[in-house]
Amino acid sequence: MLYQPAELMNTDEQQIRELVHQWLAASQAGDSAKVLTLMTEDVVFLLPGRPPMTKAEFAAASANQAKAEAPKIEGVSEIQEIQVIGDWAFMRTKLKVSVTPPGGAPPMVRAGHTLSILKKESGKWLLARDANLLSPVKSEP
Amino acid sequence: MLYQPAELMNTDEQQIRELVHQWLAASQAGDSAKVLTLMTEDVVFLLPGRPPMTKAEFAAASANQAKAEAPKIEGVSEIQEIQVIGDWAFMRTKLKVSVTPPGGAPPMVRAGHTLSILKKESGKWLLARDANLLSPVKSEP
Repeated sequence: MLYQPAELMNTDEQQIRELVHQWLAASQAGDSAKVLTLMTEDVVFLLPGRPPMTKAEFAAASANQAKAEAPKIEGVSEIQEIQVIGDWAFMRTKLKVSVTPPGGAPPMVRAGHTLSILKKESGKWLLARDANLLSPVKSEP
Repeated sequence: MLYQPAELMNTDEQQIRELVHQWLAASQAGDSAKVLTLMTEDVVFLLPGRPPMTKAEFAAASANQAKAEAPKIEGVSEIQEIQVIGDWAFMRTKLKVSVTPPGGAPPMVRAGHTLSILKKESGKWLLARDANLLSPVKSEP
């Protein structure tokens, strides 16, 4: 049996950090099927200026994006708070996402904060509610 | 002892609904001192396009607003979900706020959704984290 120091133990907080990492990696890879496995069935996405989005609507939006020539999506997330309450948790992040369309157009950069509710289902942390407050920023030169 | 039917019992969910009611009523009355009693000391407000706001920053913004000729603030909140997890809860609302400046200018109306974390401290539910995704809408004629 391998020795595992306490600070490397697979805590809930570490599992949630891993979920964020997987989400960004799958988004960057254009693997929307993988992203869909990282959320609950009843997930709700809240964004400014539009109605709440369900999982089915998220999947449809991802499929539409996949039909077009794939843009390059890069996200950098700084987790500012994780609080675990039993099988639920909430998390705040500072997030920056750049979407570069194919063909040399400049990237569209959005930055801001998120507030998310997470739920542990069958031992696996999933995104359950997500408020995304990102707004457009000028792209870097 | 008064008889209290089950549906009138003072459940956590009802206390949270009452908190929302008090918040809107105090805001409408311009009673920012009261509003400050409805949030935790470590509350964080998230809004699109600006840094997270602390309680001190919220209080300063309220004080500045009170110095000016008071606008008329009216809010209508539709609670879409409350989930209570012990001494924590989260809530989603659909919110519409109109701010009418003094002097007959047309109201500025913002509408959208919120995702909030609530915490029960000493038996009292308080707002602890708040993501406000409201965006401007055309004012009604």
